[in-house]
Amino acid sequence: MEYIAFPANRRFDFTAIGRLCIDLNANEINRPMEETVTFTKYVGGSPANITIGMSRFGMKTAFIGKIANDQMGRFIEGYLKKNDIDTGNVITDNTGAVTGLAFTEIKSPRDCSILMYRDNVADLKLNAEEVQEDLIADSKLLLISGTALAKSPSREAVFQALEYAKKHDVVVAFDIDYRPYTWSSHEETAVYYNLAAEKCDIIVGTREEFDMMERFDRNPERDDQVTASKWFDYKAKIVIIKHGKAGSIAYTKDGASHRAKSFPAKVVKTFGAGDSYAAGFLYGVMQGWTLEKSMEFGSASACIVISSHSCSDAMPTVEQVETYINRSNAGEISNSFSF
Amino acid sequence: MEYIAFPANRRFDFTAIGRLCIDLNANEINRPMEETVTFTKYVGGSPANITIGMSRFGMKTAFIGKIANDQMGRFIEGYLKKNDIDTGNVITDNTGAVTGLAFTEIKSPRDCSILMYRDNVADLKLNAEEVQEDLIADSKLLLISGTALAKSPSREAVFQALEYAKKHDVVVAFDIDYRPYTWSSHEETAVYYNLAAEKCDIIVGTREEFDMMERFDRNPERDDQVTASKWFDYKAKIVIIKHGKAGSIAYTKDGASHRAKSFPAKVVKTFGAGDSYAAGFLYGVMQGWTLEKSMEFGSASACIVISSHSCSDAMPTVEQVETYINRSNAGEISNSFSF
Amino acid sequence: MEYIAFPANRRFDFTAIGRLCIDLNANEINRPMEETVTFTKYVGGSPANITIGMSRFGMKTAFIGKIANDQMGRFIEGYLKKNDIDTGNVITDNTGAVTGLAFTEIKSPRDCSILMYRDNVADLKLNAEEVQEDLIADSKLLLISGTALAKSPSREAVFQALEYAKKHDVVVAFDIDYRPYTWSSHEETAVYYNLAAEKCDIIVGTREEFDMMERFDRNPERDDQVTASKWFDYKAKIVIIKHGKAGSIAYTKDGASHRAKSFPAKVVKTFGAGDSYAAGFLYGVMQGWTLEKSMEFGSASACIVISSHSCSDAMPTVEQVETYINRSNAGEISNSFSF
Amino acid sequence: MEYIAFPANRRFDFTAIGRLCIDLNANEINRPMEETVTFTKYVGGSPANITIGMSRFGMKTAFIGKIANDQMGRFIEGYLKKNDIDTGNVITDNTGAVTGLAFTEIKSPRDCSILMYRDNVADLKLNAEEVQEDLIADSKLLLISGTALAKSPSREAVFQALEYAKKHDVVVAFDIDYRPYTWSSHEETAVYYNLAAEKCDIIVGTREEFDMMERFDRNPERDDQVTASKWFDYKAKIVIIKHGKAGSIAYTKDGASHRAKSFPAKVVKTFGAGDSYAAGFLYGVMQGWTLEKSMEFGSASACIVISSHSCSDAMPTVEQVETYINRSNAGEISNSFSF
Repeated sequence: MEYIAFPANRRFDFTAIGRLCIDLNANEINRPMEETVTFTKYVGGSPANITIGMSRFGMKTAFIGKIANDQMGRFIEGYLKKNDIDTGNVITDNTGAVTGLAFTEIKSPRDCSILMYRDNVADLKLNAEEVQEDLIADSKLLLISGTALAKSPSREAVFQALEYAKKHDVVVAFDIDYRPYTWSSHEETAVYYNLAAEKCDIIVGTREEFDMMERFDRNPERDDQVTASKWFDYKAKIVIIKHGKAGSIAYTKDGASHRAKSFPAKVVKTFGAGDSYAAGFLYGVMQGWTLEKSMEFGSASACIVISSHSCSDAMPTVEQVETYINRSNAGEISNSFSF
Repeated sequence: MEYIAFPANRRFDFTAIGRLCIDLNANEINRPMEETVTFTKYVGGSPANITIGMSRFGMKTAFIGKIANDQMGRFIEGYLKKNDIDTGNVITDNTGAVTGLAFTEIKSPRDCSILMYRDNVADLKLNAEEVQEDLIADSKLLLISGTALAKSPSREAVFQALEYAKKHDVVVAFDIDYRPYTWSSHEETAVYYNLAAEKCDIIVGTREEFDMMERFDRNPERDDQVTASKWFDYKAKIVIIKHGKAGSIAYTKDGASHRAKSFPAKVVKTFGAGDSYAAGFLYGVMQGWTLEKSMEFGSASACIVISSHSCSDAMPTVEQVETYINRSNAGEISNSFSF
Repeated sequence: MEYIAFPANRRFDFTAIGRLCIDLNANEINRPMEETVTFTKYVGGSPANITIGMSRFGMKTAFIGKIANDQMGRFIEGYLKKNDIDTGNVITDNTGAVTGLAFTEIKSPRDCSILMYRDNVADLKLNAEEVQEDLIADSKLLLISGTALAKSPSREAVFQALEYAKKHDVVVAFDIDYRPYTWSSHEETAVYYNLAAEKCDIIVGTREEFDMMERFDRNPERDDQVTASKWFDYKAKIVIIKHGKAGSIAYTKDGASHRAKSFPAKVVKTFGAGDSYAAGFLYGVMQGWTLEKSMEFGSASACIVISSHSCSDAMPTVEQVETYINRSNAGEISNSFSF
Repeated sequence: MEYIAFPANRRFDFTAIGRLCIDLNANEINRPMEETVTFTKYVGGSPANITIGMSRFGMKTAFIGKIANDQMGRFIEGYLKKNDIDTGNVITDNTGAVTGLAFTEIKSPRDCSILMYRDNVADLKLNAEEVQEDLIADSKLLLISGTALAKSPSREAVFQALEYAKKHDVVVAFDIDYRPYTWSSHEETAVYYNLAAEKCDIIVGTREEFDMMERFDRNPERDDQVTASKWFDYKAKIVIIKHGKAGSIAYTKDGASHRAKSFPAKVVKTFGAGDSYAAGFLYGVMQGWTLEKSMEFGSASACIVISSHSCSDAMPTVEQVETYINRSNAGEISNSFSF
């Protein structure tokens, strides 16, 4: 059964709007960051990672965002281009904003944390006037990411992108990607996440993220069906709720719920799991696969990324994901980690 | 024909959310404010004035807002209570915010201006958590006013109020009331006005205000029908577009447009005309009158206010409006001014 | 004995830098402001009041300050000119700043309070580049007022004015005039008050104001002699410490202390007492009078102002002060109030 | 001749107040940072570097500053301790501030630049109340650094430290270290640099930095003697003005000027030259050496640092500096670079 119908004859399969930043990954790992001496630089940011993933899968992709007018910004733009991502709507800031940074700390494969630099960052300076209607009109799928809602004028840019998507029948996926820094209050967060989610066809988040969005609702049991049906009353067709080790469930408007099997992995760190899962899943949906097959493809994609040092750089190709699934099915990958 | 069905069995006919402030009206008029020496203090703010008007018409009313913890704030609360407006959801600020001020200058009846104090004002500090769901659930009509959208957290409070109104089938009226100060940019303004208007049943504004909202749209002819039908695609049933001296037109979802005749008036100043018009019109709609009769009632109500020194204090009773209409029809009011 | 030698051959006897604002005085007094309906507008701000006072005494005066580009700002400039105060260094703001307001509440002659509007005020936007060196170079006495130190860039403008005063041997008087609003912290306040006081010849404040300045010092007994001698180690020649009802004491570098007798007054309100006292005292010092006679002149001047409804408008002439002293000495003024 | 007398019997030879941050030095050098992939982490900040230098020279040292409550902050504190610098007055921020970062770009030995992260940094959050009077009272020399003046409350902390230094006869050295970011305006910069310089015994800066401080002065010829004598009228005994390739000149109150010979160096990058020069020079002055010998020691110290990849880590010991001078005198170091 096809849950989502994508428009035909569009120049881009996939366009994302939101955060572009730099990951500085500790080279000396399995220790606290106080003892790390050197860092390696990668492009980061959840929507950037997903777009890179989609591009590696062969999709035609574009990005809507803002970069600092400095060496970090130019590095990001160069990396996107090298990955065949259209940067015609990647704007250079001229107000002295900086590039967001994420220093990663890997104390152990399961004890990872991030030290963020998010003050005065360029990505949150994108404004509504800078969003190109023609680009969205020429896309099949628009991905929005929650962090871009955290502050004006980026917040308004996302709402304007949603308006264009509605006008031109573009399918919208919402990666909730809630990060508490930058937001002023929990109330503010809940209000804008809800206003955005009303306008989306596919919503992906953790149970905790949906709890945050239900701050003003009455769902004391934290019931997935209550959560999903709220959004089906608006525009959503698929709502994926992630339950950590218990796995993810995709709810659909027809009342069904869908689960995928998980894969073993040799985990280096957990960063990037969600992004590669999202890329793999959305790729599957766009191929017209069943939700189960799409979720399985997402899981295998995530396993590849968490077995690696980087997020963006490690995004796999379709062949790599298929090989991983085959090797796993053949029992060749032993360490276990499930999504 | 009934354009709007109001829910029955609610404690309040009318609840407004938004700005509560103080008008300081020049006592020595028909001169520049530099030459004014004394001022008289009144309660002000568009939604406050409309609520006072509705209360004078005998409606059961309530207000959702925030006041400064000072003599000005206590004066406002006392005045609302004296006018039988429920203040259970009027919150007192505790952050040191001040009461918004509007010094009015009346150089001549048609040359009026306002000197605003809007920095750090209490009314914009209302937050989403402070909005009482039960109050909205027990109201027939919720009025929102554009100025409350100008800044966080008041902006989120309005969106949360709209969410409660939807949940409890409360009719929503939107008085656009656009004031450029306080807003950061035209883009920001357009985005939030549109997000709010999507959720409203009755939208009232000037042609210029609708132009501002259409910043990202394509309506170069500034065509009323294009404007109105955009909102009929969402939730609106009545869209009133005011064309200044050319009069106001009410558009309805059935494709019809409605005009009312105007009345003569001995104009002292133009302040408060829109608020008293809105109160009169909404009162008529709630009585089940035709749009024409409702608009006529609004116009007569406005004529009474602009013939007086204050806005809030001059809001008339039903009897006063009826008398005005009768006297006008009898040719007893000569000076002319039309809406 | 002459405590201060003023430079000769200067165009201006007295130049002040700092706050220019509007007082809105309740017309209906002896009640809480909630019950006040009308207000009368006057020019206000401590250094403005002192300058008006000096001008009424026949001194050649000038003002260095910034006014809003609105009706309130133009009213202030007009009033200064009408009082023969040079406004060549009164700059008009072009950033949308407003005029500071002080609504006065007179519950009883001894129970007075002020409701302040100090957000985004023009007077605190004066910057160092706007201070005219030539004006200060052509003045005998420069008065600085503590409120102008509360925020950048006004704070830097005052320090630059002090630098010019030093360069051109201008005598500097410091009216501490501490008001807690606007300041970020007690530490910040103490640091800048001290940096300014180091450069002043005459320092006038209440015991509480000097306590605030001694936040980081060691004067647990709050001993006036400790306080005064700290400033004599810098540049001060006269330090006046006001002890409320116990009267004021002028300390001098020679180790002496000076007191003046007080006068009876029919008190309407206490606002403006300090400003008229300062004007009267500084006028006396500039005439070469003894400190006792100068303080007496200040006290009588203050008595006249507190017997009146306004501050600035009530500033007396020399003749009025002399008449008051004579009438008081003749026992013609009965109600008692002492400084 | 002894230009500066240091107090005896103090626990610390040298205490600095100001910036503590992290340098992230490009490992792949001689290219634009866009092409750099890995970075190495060092403690940085001009006063931190100088203190590390002084400690390597065997001086008893302490630091007054503020660090972020994160891995970067803890790394800094650990490094100071490891270098025998007393951290009893290094305060941990609890407001969510971050550690300042400096990414260095080395395109060629003479074409170096820095990408700074200075938003919401912990070092600028140090406040006046946190400065320990007892520590300053127990120090011979206090070093202040201009960047700490850039913002409240750090600015007030420095002025309070200067007040304590005066009270306890501590010698004060001022490293101008002007960096345009963080400052609001040129006027603000000039005013506070001047207020601080008035209270210092030794002032060290480039000709351009002194020009910035003379914004409101009249020194169109940019004459060193005019500059130096301005500060001799206050408290200064030594004023060092650096003229880039033309070398540095030390002016003294007796009217003399002093120059030192320069040394050859194999330059990797120019960062850190000023800090190691300051440490070497101040060390010499504290030993009672002539200014010429002290400047020579500073120059050799700088040559060692610029021949290395880091700043702080490369600070030499006395033996290393002496060896460098001897080898240079013996003609063993060929590439030339002069200070």
